[in-house]
Amino acid sequence: MKKFVIFGVGLIGGSVALALKKRANAPVCLGVGRHQTSLDQALALHIIDAATTDIAMALNDADMVLIAAPVAQTKTILTSIKPHLSSKTIVTDAGSTKTDVLAIAKTVLGDQACQFIGGHPIAGAEKSGPSAAMDDLYIGKNVVLTPTAENKPDDVQKVRQLWLDCGAKVVEMTAEKHDGIFATVSHLPHLLAFALVEDMVARDNAAELFQFAASGFRDFTRIAGSSPEMWRDISFANKTALLNEITAYEHALSKLKQTLIAQDSDGLQTIFERASKARNDWANKK
Amino acid sequence: MKKFVIFGVGLIGGSVALALKKRANAPVCLGVGRHQTSLDQALALHIIDAATTDIAMALNDADMVLIAAPVAQTKTILTSIKPHLSSKTIVTDAGSTKTDVLAIAKTVLGDQACQFIGGHPIAGAEKSGPSAAMDDLYIGKNVVLTPTAENKPDDVQKVRQLWLDCGAKVVEMTAEKHDGIFATVSHLPHLLAFALVEDMVARDNAAELFQFAASGFRDFTRIAGSSPEMWRDISFANKTALLNEITAYEHALSKLKQTLIAQDSDGLQTIFERASKARNDWANKK
Repeated sequence: MKKFVIFGVGLIGGSVALALKKRANAPVCLGVGRHQTSLDQALALHIIDAATTDIAMALNDADMVLIAAPVAQTKTILTSIKPHLSSKTIVTDAGSTKTDVLAIAKTVLGDQACQFIGGHPIAGAEKSGPSAAMDDLYIGKNVVLTPTAENKPDDVQKVRQLWLDCGAKVVEMTAEKHDGIFATVSHLPHLLAFALVEDMVARDNAAELFQFAASGFRDFTRIAGSSPEMWRDISFANKTALLNEITAYEHALSKLKQTLIAQDSDGLQTIFERASKARNDWANKK
Repeated sequence: MKKFVIFGVGLIGGSVALALKKRANAPVCLGVGRHQTSLDQALALHIIDAATTDIAMALNDADMVLIAAPVAQTKTILTSIKPHLSSKTIVTDAGSTKTDVLAIAKTVLGDQACQFIGGHPIAGAEKSGPSAAMDDLYIGKNVVLTPTAENKPDDVQKVRQLWLDCGAKVVEMTAEKHDGIFATVSHLPHLLAFALVEDMVARDNAAELFQFAASGFRDFTRIAGSSPEMWRDISFANKTALLNEITAYEHALSKLKQTLIAQDSDGLQTIFERASKARNDWANKK
């Protein structure tokens, strides 16, 4: 790979660029963005080698394009890319949902959709923007790729190599499976945390409640401090799977409630023990 | 205060003893516990000045008794104290629920229940036991006292001074109000986190789900790694308030679900924005 184009030079895209820079034969990294300030910042921090807002110039001779902008911009970016996309350029992304992104790629790229390979690095940090980018963000982290039967195995291998070069572990699965798993382990918890804070904010004694909230509340609700726009987009993008998760969770909560109402001490302890053990086993393994 | 007796020399009780030791005119701290190993450890760490399993000896001339054992032991401990309790000894506790503790004190201590003042320090840590105790655990933390009309104002002032000496801020409210607030900001989040993990553990693909769980899941479920016995006891001790909270939360979750089903993008964003702002404002204030 000689020319690598990144749409979105923030935490996710910038960290890929920084990780690649540490490799021998690092490609030239070209940043494309909506905000000139972000591009200037990424240049100043030596995250990218050049920046442009000229899509034709950016796509010319590009080996690979990584879309690392908010998922809601994927359609706009793909539409802007399409007229300049040679048959040799691979396009991939870093979005949190995959079924919707593949559908958008199919619609926008048409018979070039086979050049698009969906990806999702399972990594993040509290901060965002170019200044938050770090060359070790992906070391040991999972990256899910969701190739389809239309993708060329060689292209998939190149995207896989991109993430291996960043130090990540790469797993392949269908977009549907990806969206089901992340609805459970990420999208649902975010919604549950938002719901708890929303429930509190609406009360007459909200100020008093917040006054006595402590470290358990802090950690439980950390993800409720996430970007409202991003989570609105993810929620709608993965709506079907997320609704299934909410329904499953409502059943789990109802079971706990009934156990409490029935004064079933052994039953409640059994549930808490199983959950506590599973959670601590998971944390110890990580 | 000359003689201070602590039932339970772990994180909570041990940290009070260590904080008092740093004050001028520190009282003699006597530890009472179920486990000789904990007492030996607390002695070796100079947390307490002496240890005993002899309740009569412990209570003799005691100015104040702090019960810092798991809440489920409160009744047993009060029952063991009662025959040796002089009219001059103040008894207080550090339990997470207060209505049930006051009821137990009334039943067990009878006409000496006026000597019992309920307390709840809002502080904790991942670890437990004497080795986890630290002299600065309570600095800047809230301690709630739930005095009743029967308590002598002088006695309440002495318990207040105990916590002020530990560096804490002391707030007084009724036991019912306390239990309502902590059902919302602590007991409900714990139950919700247990429910999420329980929901996952029961699935056929649980191992795969855990494999892709990342930092958001980690923080959200940290409190699901808490002691099952302790949270079973708290759940039943504060059952009425907790059931009310579960019902309110079910409504909040249902509202989010309906917003999602209705494809109400602005509605979902408004909820997420309000929650995100409230959560981040709270975190910044802390």
